[in-house]
Amino acid sequence: MSIKITGTGSFIPSRIQKNENFYNHEFLNLDGSTINSPNEVIVEKFKAITGIQERRYIKPELLNSDIAFYAAEKAIADAKIDKETLDYIIVAHNYGDVTYNTQQSDTVPSIASRVKHLLKIANPRCVGYDLLFGCPGWIEGVIQAKAFIASGIAKRCLVIGSETLSRVVDKHDRDSMIYSDGAGAVIIEESTEEGGILTHETATFALDEAHFIFFGKTNKPENTDQRKYIKMYGRKIYEFALTNVPLALKACLDKSDYSIKDVKKVLIHQANEKMDEAIVKRFYKLHDMDMPKDVMPMTINLLGNSSVATVPTLYDMILKGELKDHNINKGDVIMFASVGAGMNINAIVYKQ
Amino acid sequence: MSIKITGTGSFIPSRIQKNENFYNHEFLNLDGSTINSPNEVIVEKFKAITGIQERRYIKPELLNSDIAFYAAEKAIADAKIDKETLDYIIVAHNYGDVTYNTQQSDTVPSIASRVKHLLKIANPRCVGYDLLFGCPGWIEGVIQAKAFIASGIAKRCLVIGSETLSRVVDKHDRDSMIYSDGAGAVIIEESTEEGGILTHETATFALDEAHFIFFGKTNKPENTDQRKYIKMYGRKIYEFALTNVPLALKACLDKSDYSIKDVKKVLIHQANEKMDEAIVKRFYKLHDMDMPKDVMPMTINLLGNSSVATVPTLYDMILKGELKDHNINKGDVIMFASVGAGMNINAIVYKQ
Repeated sequence: MSIKITGTGSFIPSRIQKNENFYNHEFLNLDGSTINSPNEVIVEKFKAITGIQERRYIKPELLNSDIAFYAAEKAIADAKIDKETLDYIIVAHNYGDVTYNTQQSDTVPSIASRVKHLLKIANPRCVGYDLLFGCPGWIEGVIQAKAFIASGIAKRCLVIGSETLSRVVDKHDRDSMIYSDGAGAVIIEESTEEGGILTHETATFALDEAHFIFFGKTNKPENTDQRKYIKMYGRKIYEFALTNVPLALKACLDKSDYSIKDVKKVLIHQANEKMDEAIVKRFYKLHDMDMPKDVMPMTINLLGNSSVATVPTLYDMILKGELKDHNINKGDVIMFASVGAGMNINAIVYKQ
Repeated sequence: MSIKITGTGSFIPSRIQKNENFYNHEFLNLDGSTINSPNEVIVEKFKAITGIQERRYIKPELLNSDIAFYAAEKAIADAKIDKETLDYIIVAHNYGDVTYNTQQSDTVPSIASRVKHLLKIANPRCVGYDLLFGCPGWIEGVIQAKAFIASGIAKRCLVIGSETLSRVVDKHDRDSMIYSDGAGAVIIEESTEEGGILTHETATFALDEAHFIFFGKTNKPENTDQRKYIKMYGRKIYEFALTNVPLALKACLDKSDYSIKDVKKVLIHQANEKMDEAIVKRFYKLHDMDMPKDVMPMTINLLGNSSVATVPTLYDMILKGELKDHNINKGDVIMFASVGAGMNINAIVYKQ
């Protein structure tokens, strides 16, 4: 028996937010101090490091649960399954539904219940729950689906990563340019084919790292309301990720029957292009190899960091032939990897 | 191999909020209309139905993650384990950390990461995540821990249910009197002893029921801000629970090797005393039996409905001899059961 992904779907919002749209923002440092550069320079420097030119925001009338549903619908259709046969709906997110121009996260009922409602699934034995695990939430959901299937309590799971970070950004923070909205979904099933999810690695670093990504006040000192926004210590995250993600990738691969030469693609969570390149290069360096060309497909330049949605969206786009110069074919060994708030890191070796 | 609970702990806030504290509240119906009774009558009627005399609120300076940590510390000490040997920290909640006198749920980092940080656990392979599943979240966490252990990806898990509903109540809503704060935690391990978690049942009813419990506006029409509060359609929930929870309990028990005569206690989530009695009576009626005396230990009169914390707190109190006339001894067969937002229902047959 193997545990395989049998269908994928994603939702990429239609509203494009270009870097130029940030030219008139008043950016300040985390401590409220002024940044002594014109915005054009700030934005250009931002682009050079992160690779991000534009990102996507959902329309004001939509919610996170709506786009999770859209991605789920596509994954169900792609897998050609009867939706009533799903045993689990696992939705990874971090902020729930945040209505446009409001500040509260709405998580009751769970996003999974809302998606199940929108999918019009009647079967009560299809169990829906939400999983909060930072940006690595979707990969963690895949690991949990694997555990449910391996332990015999499920045969077929829908795992969604969906986030609307545009609803929790501080416009006075340069880092707000990183964040994006999106949703990706997969169907995971018990299968008689070989391959599928081979090994996984997962970890939470919380002793010193728990609050590297956090919910904090605006950078604008004059705004004295209590409202919080997504915040991060970028430098600390960079160093942390560069040290620990390559080791997690190696540990995950070492547990499998495959070597690094078998790995065709590394689908890594994207928050910063330069950081991702440094991580994957170091992963190869741990095996005394240079990083091969085209091993790390990227969408960050046009889609930004959509948190839990980035990896499943990337995977869906490659399978559907929507990412130039990249493809994944039957029998290919690939890896999924992510790092994010918690700080959490995880990875999977997957054979298509 | 069995999967057993080897330690328990709970945190009951010290601040008592009595029914009399609500005498000066302006209660309104969900549609904003006036209730034509003096508050003393409203409160008396409330008490007659729900059984609630008083409830507990945490102190202003505390957060949900703090009380989750207090309960976790006690469970770890009770199980006499090295905290560094934990494979998972699963925290069930629904609203994250809500700072006193603010309205936003803070879930980044996850409550599990915060608890791990407070516990000073260094081992990164101890993975912490949050689970949102309405009031049945703690029982669902136990089911997930069971799946992880059964599938071989974990040996020892900490499962916490922690909630501070006092931070999301609408003071213009009579139902605000139901809600309470609290935290309960257990250690679950692979064991060579017999018994432990024998069977489970879990379900999500979302087709018509998804929004029976929801996050909505205050009942006070003059308050036009966007702030949302925990809300419910009590009558619909009552009918739903009375129909479906007894069937879930029966399905769960039927899967085990035990009969209803073997069940010593049913530890059920408590939101309404009369509803719980009706549910358990109907469960016995399905087996052509009257409900035995003392089968359903209750804490609702003094502790209110602390959501995910109610069942683990109740269990901890019985094991520690803190609940008069109730005890659970080695070899006893008991059941855990819960119903709540989602609408989710779950149950477990457990042999002590």
